[in-house]
Amino acid sequence: MASYTLGELAELVGGQVEGDETLRIEGVATLAGASEREIAFLANPHYQDQLRQTRAAAVILRESDLALSPTASLVTSDPYLAYARIAALFAPSPEGRAGIHPTAWVSEESSVHESAWIGPNCSVEAGVTIGPNCRIGPGCFVGEGSVIGADSRLVANVSVCHGVRIGRRAVIHPGVVIGGDGFGFAPHREGWQKVPQLGGVVIGDDVEIGANTTIDRGALEDTVIEDGVKLDNQIQIAHNVHIGAHTVIAGCAGISGSTHIGRRCAIAGGVGIAGHLNIADNVTITAMSLVIKSIDKPGVYSSGIPVSENYRWNRNLVHLRHLEKMAGRLKTVERRLDSRPHKQED
Amino acid sequence: MASYTLGELAELVGGQVEGDETLRIEGVATLAGASEREIAFLANPHYQDQLRQTRAAAVILRESDLALSPTASLVTSDPYLAYARIAALFAPSPEGRAGIHPTAWVSEESSVHESAWIGPNCSVEAGVTIGPNCRIGPGCFVGEGSVIGADSRLVANVSVCHGVRIGRRAVIHPGVVIGGDGFGFAPHREGWQKVPQLGGVVIGDDVEIGANTTIDRGALEDTVIEDGVKLDNQIQIAHNVHIGAHTVIAGCAGISGSTHIGRRCAIAGGVGIAGHLNIADNVTITAMSLVIKSIDKPGVYSSGIPVSENYRWNRNLVHLRHLEKMAGRLKTVERRLDSRPHKQED
Amino acid sequence: MASYTLGELAELVGGQVEGDETLRIEGVATLAGASEREIAFLANPHYQDQLRQTRAAAVILRESDLALSPTASLVTSDPYLAYARIAALFAPSPEGRAGIHPTAWVSEESSVHESAWIGPNCSVEAGVTIGPNCRIGPGCFVGEGSVIGADSRLVANVSVCHGVRIGRRAVIHPGVVIGGDGFGFAPHREGWQKVPQLGGVVIGDDVEIGANTTIDRGALEDTVIEDGVKLDNQIQIAHNVHIGAHTVIAGCAGISGSTHIGRRCAIAGGVGIAGHLNIADNVTITAMSLVIKSIDKPGVYSSGIPVSENYRWNRNLVHLRHLEKMAGRLKTVERRLDSRPHKQED
Repeated sequence: MASYTLGELAELVGGQVEGDETLRIEGVATLAGASEREIAFLANPHYQDQLRQTRAAAVILRESDLALSPTASLVTSDPYLAYARIAALFAPSPEGRAGIHPTAWVSEESSVHESAWIGPNCSVEAGVTIGPNCRIGPGCFVGEGSVIGADSRLVANVSVCHGVRIGRRAVIHPGVVIGGDGFGFAPHREGWQKVPQLGGVVIGDDVEIGANTTIDRGALEDTVIEDGVKLDNQIQIAHNVHIGAHTVIAGCAGISGSTHIGRRCAIAGGVGIAGHLNIADNVTITAMSLVIKSIDKPGVYSSGIPVSENYRWNRNLVHLRHLEKMAGRLKTVERRLDSRPHKQED
Repeated sequence: MASYTLGELAELVGGQVEGDETLRIEGVATLAGASEREIAFLANPHYQDQLRQTRAAAVILRESDLALSPTASLVTSDPYLAYARIAALFAPSPEGRAGIHPTAWVSEESSVHESAWIGPNCSVEAGVTIGPNCRIGPGCFVGEGSVIGADSRLVANVSVCHGVRIGRRAVIHPGVVIGGDGFGFAPHREGWQKVPQLGGVVIGDDVEIGANTTIDRGALEDTVIEDGVKLDNQIQIAHNVHIGAHTVIAGCAGISGSTHIGRRCAIAGGVGIAGHLNIADNVTITAMSLVIKSIDKPGVYSSGIPVSENYRWNRNLVHLRHLEKMAGRLKTVERRLDSRPHKQED
Repeated sequence: MASYTLGELAELVGGQVEGDETLRIEGVATLAGASEREIAFLANPHYQDQLRQTRAAAVILRESDLALSPTASLVTSDPYLAYARIAALFAPSPEGRAGIHPTAWVSEESSVHESAWIGPNCSVEAGVTIGPNCRIGPGCFVGEGSVIGADSRLVANVSVCHGVRIGRRAVIHPGVVIGGDGFGFAPHREGWQKVPQLGGVVIGDDVEIGANTTIDRGALEDTVIEDGVKLDNQIQIAHNVHIGAHTVIAGCAGISGSTHIGRRCAIAGGVGIAGHLNIADNVTITAMSLVIKSIDKPGVYSSGIPVSENYRWNRNLVHLRHLEKMAGRLKTVERRLDSRPHKQED
C-alpha cells in the first residue's frame, strides 16, 4: 500500500505542515471516519465539531481553522483542492493491463496503440484509432472511424458510434452513448421523414462523462464538447449542441438541439434548455429550471419551485391558474380607488 | 403449463372460495381479457362493470364486491396483493441454467457459486463473488471485488463497477449502472480537479432497480440502498445518498449527493431532491416536485404544476413573473383604503 | 462517392430546377459550410443572409426565396422534406454485412434470416426471430421469443427482453431497453410484493427509438407503440402505455403506466405525464410540463416556467407560496370598497 509523509503531501499541494512532517499517511478519510493512519480535510465550517473530535493522523485545513485542530495539520488556502490531489495518490491505480482481450473483437483495419487495453467482449470497428494508454473496458463498442485520444478510459458498456473524436484523458462511465442519431424528422403528410444525421461528435481533452449520459451526433456539422467539460449522469445533449470549456452540468439535465452554452457555466440537475439558444459564459442555472430564451449576461438564473405541504400547494395552485383574473381584479380595485375622490367631488 | 385448483390458490393467499374449489386455473388475466381458464382480480371499484361481464373462471375480490361476481370468487381483504402472489405462480420461471457460458469471460480469481449462471458475453473481474442461484444475464459487467448475493438477477447489459456489494434476491434490469464515479470536482484556477471517488455502493436484500437507473459510488464512504427499496427506470442516485428500507422511487427522479431519505417514503416521477438534505420516514413527494430543504415531518409535499391550455398559461405566467410588483400594488391599495377615512375627515 | 445531377435530385423530390440541370452534386451541407460540389437548403427565413452568401453548388428553397439565391436552385414547396430525402442519398449506407459474427452467441433454437447480420458479442436467445436485412449491432441482447421485423437496425448495446415484437424498419439506438419489467408492487405489511409483469411490448413499423430510452413490458397486457412513432433519447415509457401512430416525443419525457396517448401528438422535452390518462390525438405539450388529467381536445398545453434572474425569481416565489393569502386580501379589499359608499351615505 502506498504511503507518504505529511511533509511530502504538503510539498505536493504547496501547503505548510503544523506538526510532525515525518508522519506517515496511508490513506484519506472523513473527519469522523479517519483512523490514526489517515488524513482528513475540513473545507466546510459546518464540520468544525468533527474536526475537534477527529482521530485522523492529520487534517488538511485553512489557517483560520488551525486553532481547532487536535492533531497535525496541513495548512492551505484551498483544502478541498488539496484533498482532491492527495486523494488521487491513494485512488486505485489503473491496472497496468495492455493488449487486446481474447474475447474482444477488433477490426484488423483499426489502429490500437500497443500500450492500450481493449477489455473483454469489446467491439472495435474498422478505421478506429485508440491512443496510447487508453483503457477500453468490458463490453464497449467503438464505431467505424472513431478516434480516442491518449490516456482515455471507457469504463464498461460504453457505446461510441461512428465518426466520433474524443480527446485525451477522457473518463467515460458505463452506459454512455456518444454519436447516436440526433432527433431530426421532417413532417410528411401523415408521418415523418427521417433527416439523416451526417455530422459527428467532437470532444476535447479532460472531459468526464457520467453514466448513461447521451450525446447525439450533429445533423450536418458536429456536436462539440470543449476541453475540461464535466458531465454528470443521465444528461441528454442533442445534435449540434456546443458546450464551452470547463462548463459543468449536473445529472438529468437536457440540452436541446443547436444550443450553444458558454465557458465555465454551471447547469444544475434537471435543468432543461430549449434549442437554438445562446447561453453566455459564466452563467449558473439552478435546479429544475427551464430556459427558453438566450441568456446574454453572466449571473444566476432560476425557475424551480421548492415543495410545500401538498394541501398548501394545491390552495396556491388554484390561484396561480387564475392569476390573470386576479391581476385584472387588482387593476379594477386601483381604478375604483383612483376614481372615487372625483366621484365624491361631484 | 402449470395449473392450480381454486382451492389451492385460496390457501396460498389465505382467502375463501365462493364456488367450486376444484376449478382448475391455468393463468391470470384482466377482467376484460380473461378466458374460462384464467383468474382475474378486482381491486379498483372503477372496474365493477368489467366484473359483471367477465368470462374469467374465477375472480379475486373483496367480500363487498362478491354480490357482483358472475362466477366463482376468491374472497380476500387485499385482492391486489393476493393477485400478485398468484400471478407469481404463472410467471415464466427462471430457466434452470447454471454454469459459465463459453462466451463469457470470468476471472480465475473470482468466485462463482456452482448453482449460478453467467450468461453469454459477460465479463467478471478478479475478486468478484457471485452467490448461489444468481443469474447474470448476457452482456453484464461485474467489476473487481464486487459481491452479488444469493438468488439475485442481473437481466442483461448491467454494469456493476468495482467494490459494489449487492444483497440477496436483487432484480436489476438492463442498462443499470452501479458504482460509476460520483460527480466530484474541486475548482482549480480555470478548470476542475477530479476528486477521486473512493467509496463503494452497498445494496440490501430484496431491492429492485429499473432499466437504465444509475447509482454512483461514494466519495469516501458508501452510497447505501437499504432492504426492500424499489427503484423505477432512469433514476439518478448520486454519491453518498442513503435510501431507507422499503422506500419506492418512480421513474426519472434524481437524488443529489449525500442526501438521506427515510424509510417507506414514496418519491414520484421526475422529482428532484437537492444534496445534503434529510428526508424523514413516510414522506410522499408528488410528481415533478423540487426539494431544496430537509423535510422533517411525514406527509405529502408538492410543487408540480399541471398544464393549462397554452394561451391561458402564458397569460398567467406574465403575472407570475411580476408577482412581487402585484403584491406591492395590493399593499398600496390596502394602505390607501386604511388611510382614506382619515383624509376624508380632514 | 455517390453523385447525382441537380435534375435527378429535382425529379426525386418533385421540384423544379432554376439553373443547370446537369450540375453534379456530391453531398449536402449547410448554407454557410457548403462547397461548390454540395447542395444546401433554406427552410427557415432566418437564414436568408446565409443564402445570399452561400458557396453551395445549389440550394433547395421555396419559390418565394428564389430571388435571393446567388446560385442554381431546386424549387419546392417543402425544402426541409426535400432536403431530408436528398440527404438520405448521401448518408453512409448500411454495410452489406450479413451472417452471424463468430463472437456472437445465437441460440440454435432461434431463427435468423440469412440476409440479417448479427454483430460481435451479441446474445440471441431461443425462440427469437430476426427478419430479413436486420442489422443487430455489437453487444445487443435479444431475449427469448422476441421478434424483430425486416430491415430493422439495433445500433449497439441494445437490450430487447423476452416476448417483445418489433415491426419493420425500426431504428433503435444504443442503450435502449425494451421490455424491462414494469414498476408494479403491491403493499404488504412493511414492504412490497412484486407484481409479476406478464405482458409484452408491441412496436409497429417505422419506429425510431433514441439512445437510452426505456420501454417497459406490460403487467398483463402489452405496452404498445404504434407505427411511425419517433422517440428521442432518455424517454421513459411505463407499463401498458399506448402511443398512437406518428406521435413524436422529445428527450427526457416520462409517461406513466397505462396512459394512452393519441396519434400525431408532440410531447416536448422533459414532460411528465401521470398514469391512467387519455391524451387525445393532435395534442402538443410544451417543455417540462406536467399532465395529471386527461386531455380530450387537440391543442397546445403548458405548465413550464422560464427562468428569471435568481434574485427576481426568489422575490416572486415568496409571494407564489402565499398566493392564497394574497387572493384573500384582494377579496377583502373588494368587499371594503363595495361597502364603503353605503357607509358614507349614512
